[in-house]
Amino acid sequence: MSEPASRASELDAADELGKLRERFVLDEVVYLDGNSLGALPANVPGRVEDVVRRQWGELRIRSWGESGWWTAPERIGDRIAPLVGAAEGQIVVGDSTSVNVFKALVAAVRMAEAGGSGSGSARDEILVDATTFPTDGYIAESAARMTGRTLRPVTPAEVPGALSDRTAAVLLNHVDYRTGRLHDLPSLTAAVHAAGAVAVWDLCHSAGALPVGLDEHGVDLAVGCTYKYLNGGPGSPAYLYVRRELQDRFDSPLPGWNSHADPFGMRASFEPAAGALRGRVGTPDILSMLALEAALEVWEGVSIEAVRTKSLALTDFFLECVGAYVGEGRVESLTPVAHDERGSQVALRCDDAGEVMKRLIERGVVGDFRHPDVLRFGFTPLYVGFADAERAARVLGELLS
Amino acid sequence: MSEPASRASELDAADELGKLRERFVLDEVVYLDGNSLGALPANVPGRVEDVVRRQWGELRIRSWGESGWWTAPERIGDRIAPLVGAAEGQIVVGDSTSVNVFKALVAAVRMAEAGGSGSGSARDEILVDATTFPTDGYIAESAARMTGRTLRPVTPAEVPGALSDRTAAVLLNHVDYRTGRLHDLPSLTAAVHAAGAVAVWDLCHSAGALPVGLDEHGVDLAVGCTYKYLNGGPGSPAYLYVRRELQDRFDSPLPGWNSHADPFGMRASFEPAAGALRGRVGTPDILSMLALEAALEVWEGVSIEAVRTKSLALTDFFLECVGAYVGEGRVESLTPVAHDERGSQVALRCDDAGEVMKRLIERGVVGDFRHPDVLRFGFTPLYVGFADAERAARVLGELLS
Repeated sequence: MSEPASRASELDAADELGKLRERFVLDEVVYLDGNSLGALPANVPGRVEDVVRRQWGELRIRSWGESGWWTAPERIGDRIAPLVGAAEGQIVVGDSTSVNVFKALVAAVRMAEAGGSGSGSARDEILVDATTFPTDGYIAESAARMTGRTLRPVTPAEVPGALSDRTAAVLLNHVDYRTGRLHDLPSLTAAVHAAGAVAVWDLCHSAGALPVGLDEHGVDLAVGCTYKYLNGGPGSPAYLYVRRELQDRFDSPLPGWNSHADPFGMRASFEPAAGALRGRVGTPDILSMLALEAALEVWEGVSIEAVRTKSLALTDFFLECVGAYVGEGRVESLTPVAHDERGSQVALRCDDAGEVMKRLIERGVVGDFRHPDVLRFGFTPLYVGFADAERAARVLGELLS
Repeated sequence: MSEPASRASELDAADELGKLRERFVLDEVVYLDGNSLGALPANVPGRVEDVVRRQWGELRIRSWGESGWWTAPERIGDRIAPLVGAAEGQIVVGDSTSVNVFKALVAAVRMAEAGGSGSGSARDEILVDATTFPTDGYIAESAARMTGRTLRPVTPAEVPGALSDRTAAVLLNHVDYRTGRLHDLPSLTAAVHAAGAVAVWDLCHSAGALPVGLDEHGVDLAVGCTYKYLNGGPGSPAYLYVRRELQDRFDSPLPGWNSHADPFGMRASFEPAAGALRGRVGTPDILSMLALEAALEVWEGVSIEAVRTKSLALTDFFLECVGAYVGEGRVESLTPVAHDERGSQVALRCDDAGEVMKRLIERGVVGDFRHPDVLRFGFTPLYVGFADAERAARVLGELLS
C-alpha cells in the first residue's frame, strides 16, 4: 500500500462522519461532482413514492392542507435555516436560483431607495461580482435595467474600494463556482453596510459545505440552490433569505398570489404577507420540493462545523495526494491554500482538461470540466471519504503520466 | 333508476373517451376538481421512480445529457404544443405561471416599444382582465411598474372599447377561473392587433379542455399551468408560448443562464438563445418536469376536439341534472349556457357555499369553493363520466333539500 493510501485508511477510520455515507445511494464510483448535483439520499425514493401515490393519487386536492403542501416553502426554509446560520422564519423555498437573484436584487435596490439617509444622493449603482457564475450577472443586468440603475462588475477584492454613496446593492458569491475560492462574507458585508448599501449573497457553493452565519454577520438578503451540497435532486427549488428586520421593506418584483396576505381571498389588490412568505410567488412545485424536504433529513444530528472540518481535511489531503501522484507542472491548483479562503472543491488548471475529465469519468472518478481548462473536484463531506480523494488523485496521476 | 341516472348510463355507454379513465388512478370518489389539481395518471409513479432511482441515483450528473434532462423544457413544450394548437419550437416549460406571466408581459411591452410604427405616440398602457385570477393582476401591476407603464383593469367585454394607440399589451384569460366563462380568443386577439398592441393569453383553465388555436388565431404570447386539465401534478411547471415570428424580439426580464446561446460557455455577457429557448431561465426542476412529461402521454391518440365535445356534453348534462335534482332557487349558475362561452367547469352560486362544499366532499363529491359564494365543479373529459355528473347533482340536491 502506498503511503497516501495507508494515510487514507487511517483518516477514514478516524472519521466521525464516515458512517453518514450509508444515508446515500452510492456505488463504486468516486463521486466528486456533488458541487453540481448531490448524490441521492437513501430516504428520498420512498418519500417521493408516497407523495406521488398517496398524497397526489389518493388524497389529491386535500393534500394542500392535509399533507402540508401549502406550507412547504416556509417549512423547508426553516429546515435549511440552521445550516446557513439563520433563525427560523427568514427563508422560503421555491423557484430557481436565477429567479431568486432577481427578487433579491430588485428588492435590495428598493430597500436602498426607501432607506435613504436623506442625504439626497441617488444610489444609482449596483455592484456585481465579476467572477460570478454567469446567471447572476445576467439577472443583475436585468435588475439594473428594470430599476434604472447602472451595473458595475468588480471582483470581490475590489468591492471595498468600489463602494460609495452611489451604491444601492451588492451581489456577491460566497464561494466562486470555478476556483472554489471562499470570499470573506463577514468583512464584505460590513463594508457594504458601512457604505449604506444592501448586501445580497449567493450561497450556491457554500450552503451545506461550511458555516455561513447569515444572522450573525448581518447579511441582508441571500439566495442559494439546493441541489449541490444539500442534495435536493436535479433542479430542486432554490431558497431566499430575507433578514427579519428587513422583511417589512421587502418589496418583491414578483408578487404572486402565494405572497399575498390572504391568498385565498382572491382579492384584486395586492397586500403582501408578513414575514418571509412575501418571498413566495406562484404555486410551489410539490414533487421537487418534498424530495428536497426528505433530502434535508440526512442532516439530522450533523453539525455544519464538523462538516467544515472534514471538508478542509479532505481538500488538504486531495491536494497532498495530487502533489504525490501527479507529475510536476501537469496541473496547477486554482483553489487557495489558506483554509479561510477555500470552499469545498478543488479546481485544477490542466491542459486538455475536457478530454482528461472524460477519461477520469471512464475510470470511475467523476468530477466536472469548466471551460476552458479547469478540472473541478467537489468534496461533499457527508459521503466522500479520504480513500476517494486518494483514488481520484492516483487515477489523475496515471492519466497524466 | 331515475330518468337522469338511466340517461347517464346511456351516455357513458356511448362515450368513446370513456376507456381513457383507465389511464388514471381513481377511486369511488366523484372527482370534479381536476380544474384545480388533475388526477394522477397511472404511468406517472413508475416514471418518477425511474427518474429518482436510476437517472438521479445511478447516472447522477450524466443524466443531464443521457436522460435528456437538459432539453426537457423544450421537448415537453413540444408535447403540449398540439393541445393548444401550436407548431413545435414555440413552447418551453418551466417556472410557475406567475413567473411566466411576468416574462410574457414585460416582453410584450418591449415588443410594442420596439415595433413602434413611428407614429411617435407612446404606448404607455397595459390592459389587464379585471376578472382575472388575482396573481395575473398582481404580476401585471409589477410588470407595469417596472416598465413605466400604467395598468388599466377592464373586463374582457370592455377590451375592444379600451384599446387605443396608447395600448402596449393586453393580458387576458381564456377561461375565467371563477365562472367558467370562455372568452372569445380569436376576436379579442384580432382587436388587440388592430390597435397595434401585443396579446398575452393565460390558458390555465382552457388548455387540455378545449381547442385553443394559438397559431391559427395569431396569439403573440401565452402562458398556462400544467396541473389542471394537463394532470402534471401539484405545482408542476408552467409553460410559455412565444409565437415564432416574435421570438427574435422576445427580450426576457429573466435572462438566466438557461436562455443563453451558449449556456456552458460561462460567458460574462448575455447573448440570448435562438427560438423559444430564450424563455427558459434557471436550472429546470427535473422531478416535477419529468412527471409532467409522463402525464402528457395519456393524450396519445386523443383529439382535443373529441375532448371538447365530451366536455360540453358533460356540463350540459350536469346543468340538466342540477335542474332536475336541486330545488328551485337554491343555486344559480354563473356559467354561460351558450357553448361558445363556456369552458369545462360549472360554477354555481349558492348560499353558505363553503359549508355545502364541505358536506359534498364528505359525501364523496369533490369540487371546490371559491370565496365568497361559489361552488366550482370541473369536468375533465379524460376521466369524468356522465354517471359522475349525475351523482354529483343528485348529492347536491339531497344536501340542499
